[in-house]
Amino acid sequence: MRPSGRDLSELRPVSIETGVTKHAEGSCLIRMGDTHVLCTATIEERVPPFIKGSGLGWVTAEYGMLPRSTNTRMRREAASGKQGGRTVEIQRLIGRALRAGVDRVALGERQITIDCDVIQADGGTRCASITGGWVALRLAVNKLMKAGDVLSDPLIDPVAAVSCGIYAGQPVLDLDYLEDSDAGVDGNFILTGSGRLVEVQMSAEGSTFTRAQMDELLDLADKGVQELVALQKAATE
Amino acid sequence: MRPSGRDLSELRPVSIETGVTKHAEGSCLIRMGDTHVLCTATIEERVPPFIKGSGLGWVTAEYGMLPRSTNTRMRREAASGKQGGRTVEIQRLIGRALRAGVDRVALGERQITIDCDVIQADGGTRCASITGGWVALRLAVNKLMKAGDVLSDPLIDPVAAVSCGIYAGQPVLDLDYLEDSDAGVDGNFILTGSGRLVEVQMSAEGSTFTRAQMDELLDLADKGVQELVALQKAATE
Amino acid sequence: MRPSGRDLSELRPVSIETGVTKHAEGSCLIRMGDTHVLCTATIEERVPPFIKGSGLGWVTAEYGMLPRSTNTRMRREAASGKQGGRTVEIQRLIGRALRAGVDRVALGERQITIDCDVIQADGGTRCASITGGWVALRLAVNKLMKAGDVLSDPLIDPVAAVSCGIYAGQPVLDLDYLEDSDAGVDGNFILTGSGRLVEVQMSAEGSTFTRAQMDELLDLADKGVQELVALQKAATE
Amino acid sequence: MRPSGRDLSELRPVSIETGVTKHAEGSCLIRMGDTHVLCTATIEERVPPFIKGSGLGWVTAEYGMLPRSTNTRMRREAASGKQGGRTVEIQRLIGRALRAGVDRVALGERQITIDCDVIQADGGTRCASITGGWVALRLAVNKLMKAGDVLSDPLIDPVAAVSCGIYAGQPVLDLDYLEDSDAGVDGNFILTGSGRLVEVQMSAEGSTFTRAQMDELLDLADKGVQELVALQKAATE
Amino acid sequence: MRPSGRDLSELRPVSIETGVTKHAEGSCLIRMGDTHVLCTATIEERVPPFIKGSGLGWVTAEYGMLPRSTNTRMRREAASGKQGGRTVEIQRLIGRALRAGVDRVALGERQITIDCDVIQADGGTRCASITGGWVALRLAVNKLMKAGDVLSDPLIDPVAAVSCGIYAGQPVLDLDYLEDSDAGVDGNFILTGSGRLVEVQMSAEGSTFTRAQMDELLDLADKGVQELVALQKAATE
Amino acid sequence: MRPSGRDLSELRPVSIETGVTKHAEGSCLIRMGDTHVLCTATIEERVPPFIKGSGLGWVTAEYGMLPRSTNTRMRREAASGKQGGRTVEIQRLIGRALRAGVDRVALGERQITIDCDVIQADGGTRCASITGGWVALRLAVNKLMKAGDVLSDPLIDPVAAVSCGIYAGQPVLDLDYLEDSDAGVDGNFILTGSGRLVEVQMSAEGSTFTRAQMDELLDLADKGVQELVALQKAATE
Repeated sequence: MRPSGRDLSELRPVSIETGVTKHAEGSCLIRMGDTHVLCTATIEERVPPFIKGSGLGWVTAEYGMLPRSTNTRMRREAASGKQGGRTVEIQRLIGRALRAGVDRVALGERQITIDCDVIQADGGTRCASITGGWVALRLAVNKLMKAGDVLSDPLIDPVAAVSCGIYAGQPVLDLDYLEDSDAGVDGNFILTGSGRLVEVQMSAEGSTFTRAQMDELLDLADKGVQELVALQKAATE
Repeated sequence: MRPSGRDLSELRPVSIETGVTKHAEGSCLIRMGDTHVLCTATIEERVPPFIKGSGLGWVTAEYGMLPRSTNTRMRREAASGKQGGRTVEIQRLIGRALRAGVDRVALGERQITIDCDVIQADGGTRCASITGGWVALRLAVNKLMKAGDVLSDPLIDPVAAVSCGIYAGQPVLDLDYLEDSDAGVDGNFILTGSGRLVEVQMSAEGSTFTRAQMDELLDLADKGVQELVALQKAATE
Repeated sequence: MRPSGRDLSELRPVSIETGVTKHAEGSCLIRMGDTHVLCTATIEERVPPFIKGSGLGWVTAEYGMLPRSTNTRMRREAASGKQGGRTVEIQRLIGRALRAGVDRVALGERQITIDCDVIQADGGTRCASITGGWVALRLAVNKLMKAGDVLSDPLIDPVAAVSCGIYAGQPVLDLDYLEDSDAGVDGNFILTGSGRLVEVQMSAEGSTFTRAQMDELLDLADKGVQELVALQKAATE
Repeated sequence: MRPSGRDLSELRPVSIETGVTKHAEGSCLIRMGDTHVLCTATIEERVPPFIKGSGLGWVTAEYGMLPRSTNTRMRREAASGKQGGRTVEIQRLIGRALRAGVDRVALGERQITIDCDVIQADGGTRCASITGGWVALRLAVNKLMKAGDVLSDPLIDPVAAVSCGIYAGQPVLDLDYLEDSDAGVDGNFILTGSGRLVEVQMSAEGSTFTRAQMDELLDLADKGVQELVALQKAATE
Repeated sequence: MRPSGRDLSELRPVSIETGVTKHAEGSCLIRMGDTHVLCTATIEERVPPFIKGSGLGWVTAEYGMLPRSTNTRMRREAASGKQGGRTVEIQRLIGRALRAGVDRVALGERQITIDCDVIQADGGTRCASITGGWVALRLAVNKLMKAGDVLSDPLIDPVAAVSCGIYAGQPVLDLDYLEDSDAGVDGNFILTGSGRLVEVQMSAEGSTFTRAQMDELLDLADKGVQELVALQKAATE
Repeated sequence: MRPSGRDLSELRPVSIETGVTKHAEGSCLIRMGDTHVLCTATIEERVPPFIKGSGLGWVTAEYGMLPRSTNTRMRREAASGKQGGRTVEIQRLIGRALRAGVDRVALGERQITIDCDVIQADGGTRCASITGGWVALRLAVNKLMKAGDVLSDPLIDPVAAVSCGIYAGQPVLDLDYLEDSDAGVDGNFILTGSGRLVEVQMSAEGSTFTRAQMDELLDLADKGVQELVALQKAATE
């Protein structure tokens, strides 16, 4: 019944290839079906002004889509002179999500920037960015630990994300672009490896939903994230 | 236990004053405690390019804060040359929320813009904007109906919003600024008068939460929104 | 003969409501007929770079119109990415006007920013901003004096402003929007309580005027400003 | 007593050289002492949207300063990404001033843009721009008349401008930079050849003035403008 | 003597992988040593205004670097609100270079946009973009030909580019980042498969060069480009 | 055969008038036929951040065209909010070219900014800017030397530039606008007084060229630059 033939609770094929760029302190190319996102982590020994001197670290994110990552070419944001509202929302979300798994005291007063650049888009790019972003972050932090720059592991609980929605009247896991375009209700669910919730965003464009539906989607999300966390672990060990 | 002395499930005093500006097709000043938002509705007989010729209407929103609506003066966004990420996120949310209650076929090919300008801020400005924005929208649509410009009521289910969060370990309704600054977990809940969910956004800055906590907050939100919907109704009848 | 039925030398009904926002050091809502402007004063213990270390204070102003303060909705300046030429001109004028009544030595090295936000417009918003802006400034300075942060009163002569013009061949005081649209010649006159001139701006879009006409308008302005100064005084005592 | 040794009511040496660029429909280089402004007029057979189809013409102006026209190099406005408040104010003033001398019906539905670029600045650049701008406009209109594109002369009364101020306690005509920096009160006076007023802008940075002083400055301005109008005439005949 | 151990006239290992994104009409990932550029071609049935109705086609290019394609993270151009001077120069160069090999009459009135996004940078990104951009263009045009949308092949002579420079006193082919940083003189040479020159850009930061040196570099470039053209051909057959 | 009647290897009439603005440390108005560029040099006792503390000086350039320097009025770049790609390319080229003739150690840690503003354009504005820019630089450095601020002359070899191209099948020197519009191949050649090459930029819009053609153009350029260097010398002695 799904266009891809997947089961209702089946993720797309996921692969996480690490070490894909030589300059970044951590990097991976995450593929969730036809959605491909390049995630890199950059460590800098400085923090934003609002926490200077606090001893706390910071994790932030930026997000972009290559102009032809989509079916129709999008205008390049650098050329249009600003990041659109959707871009800004997504990159704020990615940063907030990743910080939920970080002990900022243990990280120490430094900043890690996660760049998530969508090479090819087929739905779920923000979730792939969070899941892949965590892998890049994990690899960069491993480098800090190896070098003795942090003493205890600042990554306390892995963070991953997946979208779910009501498609053709059924709750389904990990919407691809075709499903996403048709889903009346969809949500992004960010959870930790220990099963706690980090962020829930459910919305219904021009529609509404019930708490029962919400619960069904949460169950799916929980299952999907645990699978993703296992893949993150496998990729970074 | 709450700084304001309110019960855990008690809204701040709410007032909705309508007809506050002479030019707008609908307007109100909503006060939720010390949060005051001026909401105006503007009807235009044109729609954005992406729906031109579709026969469908559009409802959109813009949001702003006066520079000294806050404790410390904020930079005026017009002077800094762009709307910040938070502003863009909020105005996209308001528009999406209001559209959930609108039958865009019945509205016909016209656009209603809801401007939400925060005169004084004390937490919960986006929720107050949605609740007050609906009132301005209701008044503008009443005008269209009176003039015979729409034949059946395009507003199918009132929309209102409230924030909830975990403050000092307790789930509380309608956070004010003091509580909001301290809450580890908070969420914005947008519901309709008939009790359906429109949008749920829960997040935990540097923290996480359980599904049990989520359920408690949803219960509080449901109660709060029903009270707000009654106030919206009283203000527009 | 005036659309409003006013006498040639009659101001619109004026009210000045103070203390309208809880965060600002001084605030008022000034209503000149249907022109309503919210004025707030913000004190900051810093000055612009060009007077740092001089011991002198600074008073500056910013001006904005809510998008639906006007008959037809204006584009929000924050969304269009810059302040228009008219906005920039007006806020420079307000700042310059207010500084004329200030002893910057007595004020000491601090800055007071006057924000003038037009809630509803019906002509004469810049004059209302100056007159109301002075009230907000007065209230903020009163706070400084009460706290002992300034030793002598830095406000030496109250400043107020009014527009005058030639409407239907007659010199009239305090143009409303209808008159303003039709006036061949109009001017903004900023004077002090002691009757001295601060700024005179007279212009004639596509027309010209004589010195005799100019004198008549100055007489009207003088009368109007003295009435406004009395209202400022009443509001701040 | 004036730094330049001029009499109180003496203009700086003025020269107006016409035909200085081969592309423009009208052009001149006006020198008022050490203030040198290049003025060009461009005729276009189109008008701004707000008068399309009205049959009326439009005259508008743009103003700029070369980065090293001033004593200290100014940042190039094209590089800083926007025109400053002062620039915007000045170019609006120039356009408004020139339109006062134009019969827009006789001009017909076309636009003339006057570009005023300051090659070297020594005070009074906006007045020189208006006076020189009129010359460029006159030459461009002559071309239209010669070609039979306009039937009657749309230039009905020449427009020129001069600054006056109170310097060292004395009213003086045509302030240069040294005087301007020290003048407590100064004004820009735009008049026509027939002695009518077009625009009066008097202000007093951190100071005030009396009507008697205002009258003295107006007398000086009237004298100065008549001399400038004679020079405009000589340059264009 | 070269840091990489290459011969003076030896290219870095080059690979061209085609079909790397599913949405674009043509795409490749070109790797010249550690410089990796993703090139995509987008066909649109519209042309820029300046050739509308001419029957001619257009080929244009845009260029970007991912923030962490470089050793130190660069600021994202979309976030800084504009494309830097270097970016603008490079993308103009790429478009101009590719057009030299195109028969714009045969292409017909349509536009092909080549996006060149640098995934990893190690010197020579503009040359890799041109060489890879031609491959993406070739693949997109093949699609047009297959579909019968163009009747004769609009690609008349393949275009490729390579850098050369004087490193450690020796003329060398295909500078990598280490060499590029040290080279007193370097140039970008764009040639066609038939050995004609398209564009030559030689410069010497803070230095100069002789015609004899220029000739040596041209010889190297000619050799390098012929090798690249062979690789382009192999990749697209 | 050339529209101007010039010989194939004949420059346009060139004049260099120095000392044209009173504020700049060095200035000239260079006229190459109908191309007129005002060049000024500004000395500042500061350098860009990337060489602070290095003891090295910096020479940079900015370029602009007055809106009506061209046949059709161009949009003012300050009004459009950014410098176009062509402007950015040209000013980077001018700076780079001039630095080739400068001993930055001898200059000492200061910056000289060359502003090149095109008053009237008729082809070859970038070459005129470089040739005139060197004159302004020479005059400014003379001032530094006279004042004893630099001990040895930091200008080691004069820099000048000229364009050449293939017009009507013939290699010609110093293209004017008419020739430039028709030339299939053209180039900008920057050389020093001692005959060394600084920068070569040859390109062929939609066309290609041979090495033999390139050599012919280089011969012409060499001849033209030597004439220009003689004129620079004459103007600054």
